[in-house]
Amino acid sequence: MFRPQIKVLDCTIRDGGLINKWGFNDDFVRKVFQALSKAGIDYMEIGYKSSEKYFSRDENGAWKFCTDDDVKRVMGDFETKMKLSAMADIGRIDYKDIPDKKDSVLDMIRVACYAKEIDKGISLAHHCMEKGYDVTINLMAVSKVLERDLDEALDDLSKSQVPVIYVVDSFGAMYSEQIHFLAKKYFEALPGKELGIHTHNNLQLAFANTIEAVIAGINRIDATIYGMGRGAGNCPLELLLSFLKNPKFDIRPILEIIQELFIPLKAETEWGYHVPYLITGMLNEHPRSGIKAMGEKTMPNLRKFYDDLKDGTHLE
Amino acid sequence: MFRPQIKVLDCTIRDGGLINKWGFNDDFVRKVFQALSKAGIDYMEIGYKSSEKYFSRDENGAWKFCTDDDVKRVMGDFETKMKLSAMADIGRIDYKDIPDKKDSVLDMIRVACYAKEIDKGISLAHHCMEKGYDVTINLMAVSKVLERDLDEALDDLSKSQVPVIYVVDSFGAMYSEQIHFLAKKYFEALPGKELGIHTHNNLQLAFANTIEAVIAGINRIDATIYGMGRGAGNCPLELLLSFLKNPKFDIRPILEIIQELFIPLKAETEWGYHVPYLITGMLNEHPRSGIKAMGEKTMPNLRKFYDDLKDGTHLE
Repeated sequence: MFRPQIKVLDCTIRDGGLINKWGFNDDFVRKVFQALSKAGIDYMEIGYKSSEKYFSRDENGAWKFCTDDDVKRVMGDFETKMKLSAMADIGRIDYKDIPDKKDSVLDMIRVACYAKEIDKGISLAHHCMEKGYDVTINLMAVSKVLERDLDEALDDLSKSQVPVIYVVDSFGAMYSEQIHFLAKKYFEALPGKELGIHTHNNLQLAFANTIEAVIAGINRIDATIYGMGRGAGNCPLELLLSFLKNPKFDIRPILEIIQELFIPLKAETEWGYHVPYLITGMLNEHPRSGIKAMGEKTMPNLRKFYDDLKDGTHLE
Repeated sequence: MFRPQIKVLDCTIRDGGLINKWGFNDDFVRKVFQALSKAGIDYMEIGYKSSEKYFSRDENGAWKFCTDDDVKRVMGDFETKMKLSAMADIGRIDYKDIPDKKDSVLDMIRVACYAKEIDKGISLAHHCMEKGYDVTINLMAVSKVLERDLDEALDDLSKSQVPVIYVVDSFGAMYSEQIHFLAKKYFEALPGKELGIHTHNNLQLAFANTIEAVIAGINRIDATIYGMGRGAGNCPLELLLSFLKNPKFDIRPILEIIQELFIPLKAETEWGYHVPYLITGMLNEHPRSGIKAMGEKTMPNLRKFYDDLKDGTHLE
């Protein structure tokens, strides 16, 4: 698939940081930054913008905060065309913690919010736009949102200034038919806006659903190196680059860094397809119970885990 | 997806046996047989029918041969509605080694062949039909077959008596668009016949492509427990059962046997998504070089592996 408008964003450090509290050292992040640059990736999401009033550096690595000092330490004087992004969560950052774009090495801020807090999300996004950034809204966990509520959120977004909206499969619960359904719905509700896709791999469908999103006309694509991300992980960047035929991309720097850093990291850090994540995904549940199960010394009884979670969804 | 015509075949022992030369002990195969029965699976493919004139029992486990004695040892007197299948490869079995159906516990023989040997495949398939078996032909490696040659093979198949033909992605190289293209082509070329799908997971698309095949109208579905199969493995049965809504299926016996047998087995046996398999899949090559790479004590340089295999496809 070659479509010049397609733009790839790597969020390995941001989403992978959810596993290790952003405890990547500077050398690791520098190597990722340089490999992504060489591979022709359009955006690197290097972490979250969070307020140090709410979160401590004793408990969280630098990429929970992404101050300019943090980011400049790993950029050094390496020449790149790649743009840098950070994610901002509603309620975890104060407006005053967003510096003016002219004083920042960040190019873009992606605002993550749930449908029920869409007004706060749009307000923060507009604030970031006024500060001079490229801005997107990533509407999380929509596999759990009733259609009427989703339509209302999309209506609010259509009236906003925010130019890019993401379809986000937070629970890794969607099949290709849901992707096509949501892409059509978002395109119809959001004329003139660009769409993005962010998937999780609970059902081994993160890459497949990303392809379907591209087929459906979505141009802003999220991926992570070797699929690193919380729980079942994300769409693997190396697979995405095997599919996209745009000559600006080169898979080889990604193969190199997978071998140097990510295969060793995966031997000691837990992410990717495992049965507890399949179970939360197939039941369209938050992966937290799966993450807890995988964190135990002994894996819990999988049949009981399934029965309990399934029964938990049987409310009268 | 609930469509009563859908029939699931588990080929864990047959395809997984390609990894360990069918070295599963009787107790392992008996537990798989009982779990699949309890889960409501339609067919278990328990191995290959091969001639002991060509292959030795010293070098291959019982499931390379699947004599009635072998199969009866694991069936015992366990009551089941599940049918039993074995695969036959052209040139690896003599016609006289196929017993009459009335003397056999096997219900079905699936003939695997390449497009270029379709006449031999049809001949063996007709022989098995005359012996009384249900019969299919699995047309392998079609991602490498020129369309004109494929059309000719399909024309031969359309004139045959064989009632079920499989779309087979031997190299794990297909995207959803290829699945839909081939399903449409096969349906048009093979009026009155049923179609099947058999996928590999090199690009983490085995389950996704199986779903697309079901959407395209294909009813005979292959899968393996925990995705076990040579190289990158197959469509995981547990994922397939999470998708199919037919009330006859029960995922829980499969979750139990994954925990009891397959998670421990995977810790000591190599299958599933790895970068060498991604590389052979994206280049539409036989996985043998990837299997060799994964068998080395130290993983070879992945960038060089990619460059070498890519250069190898640059013939002038």
